[in-house]
Amino acid sequence: MHKLAVQTERKTQLLDITAEVGQAVKGAAGGAAVVFVPHTTAGIVLQASGEGATAVAADLEAALEQLVDEAWSWQHTTEGDRNPWAHVRSALTASSITIPLEDGELALGDLQTIFLCEFEGPRERKIYVTVI
Amino acid sequence: MHKLAVQTERKTQLLDITAEVGQAVKGAAGGAAVVFVPHTTAGIVLQASGEGATAVAADLEAALEQLVDEAWSWQHTTEGDRNPWAHVRSALTASSITIPLEDGELALGDLQTIFLCEFEGPRERKIYVTVI
Amino acid sequence: MHKLAVQTERKTQLLDITAEVGQAVKGAAGGAAVVFVPHTTAGIVLQASGEGATAVAADLEAALEQLVDEAWSWQHTTEGDRNPWAHVRSALTASSITIPLEDGELALGDLQTIFLCEFEGPRERKIYVTVI
Repeated sequence: MHKLAVQTERKTQLLDITAEVGQAVKGAAGGAAVVFVPHTTAGIVLQASGEGATAVAADLEAALEQLVDEAWSWQHTTEGDRNPWAHVRSALTASSITIPLEDGELALGDLQTIFLCEFEGPRERKIYVTVI
Repeated sequence: MHKLAVQTERKTQLLDITAEVGQAVKGAAGGAAVVFVPHTTAGIVLQASGEGATAVAADLEAALEQLVDEAWSWQHTTEGDRNPWAHVRSALTASSITIPLEDGELALGDLQTIFLCEFEGPRERKIYVTVI
Repeated sequence: MHKLAVQTERKTQLLDITAEVGQAVKGAAGGAAVVFVPHTTAGIVLQASGEGATAVAADLEAALEQLVDEAWSWQHTTEGDRNPWAHVRSALTASSITIPLEDGELALGDLQTIFLCEFEGPRERKIYVTVI
């Protein structure tokens, strides 16, 4: 298993980790790569890269903040942790995505990018990558 | 890896791809099948088949359109691509689902159906199926 | 494949199944464990354990009920099944999560717990666990 570490810089942030994951699996003989996030206020999505990608990421950050409103009534707020909305936003993304490998490379679509989704940043986050 | 292609017919559409995926894995010796969507405005869900399935699919299409409102303020709208909401709807579904195999068949629940989720149709879409 | 069975007790409930899944994979030689839910009104998420976990689970239950409103107009309601919102809530969580294994143990993050998400309880639910 490869354990990657990245640093996020904002409270809510989509961070492109495609190069790091691609490097971890490079030349691997297996059929697929499991990308796993060992955190409960972060997640993972595959979303658009290329022209307009910054806007797509910004829109997704804003949409998840809008969908799960910090003004809702929360139980967890009164118990020390102040980010119950971060847990819900994380639950709406994925904790694991399994990406097929072709000739030792990630078989991503033309515009697909692997994004770590930060909902309680800035923090150092880990990503586990396992070839199966 | 099997690469399947399907044609969607509406802007937002759940398309049953269970038979195509089942055919791709038929008799395979592995433990599970990874079903992967190489697109950023489409996704995958397992939802109900059988009696009432058409209504379940229609309700899910309508719910995802209602959850992620095209009337929200979007950054990506002004950059050429006109479907930022399609990216967000896609992010709320899955890019990959891994289904256990039993005797070379998909070990789906009694009513489970594999649906490709189209959010920017009509288009030709690919699905990658890898047995692991 | 291991087939686990659990009993839920409320209509909407996050049920901790970490111990059961951990027992099923204990000592396994593979690289990852696929945790799969063969139901269309239930799902799976990895969320917080430890202090405050009950509140996190309660907040996530409430948030999913709030996000997908039973008062919306539904097609499926008139066809016998009375829980179209349960299908949508299920679609927003995951049907499968693949968790890396390290020395025959689930490589979960420090606070990560595996929760079955019930949206149409109380019911008996199955979980399939396959090591790959």
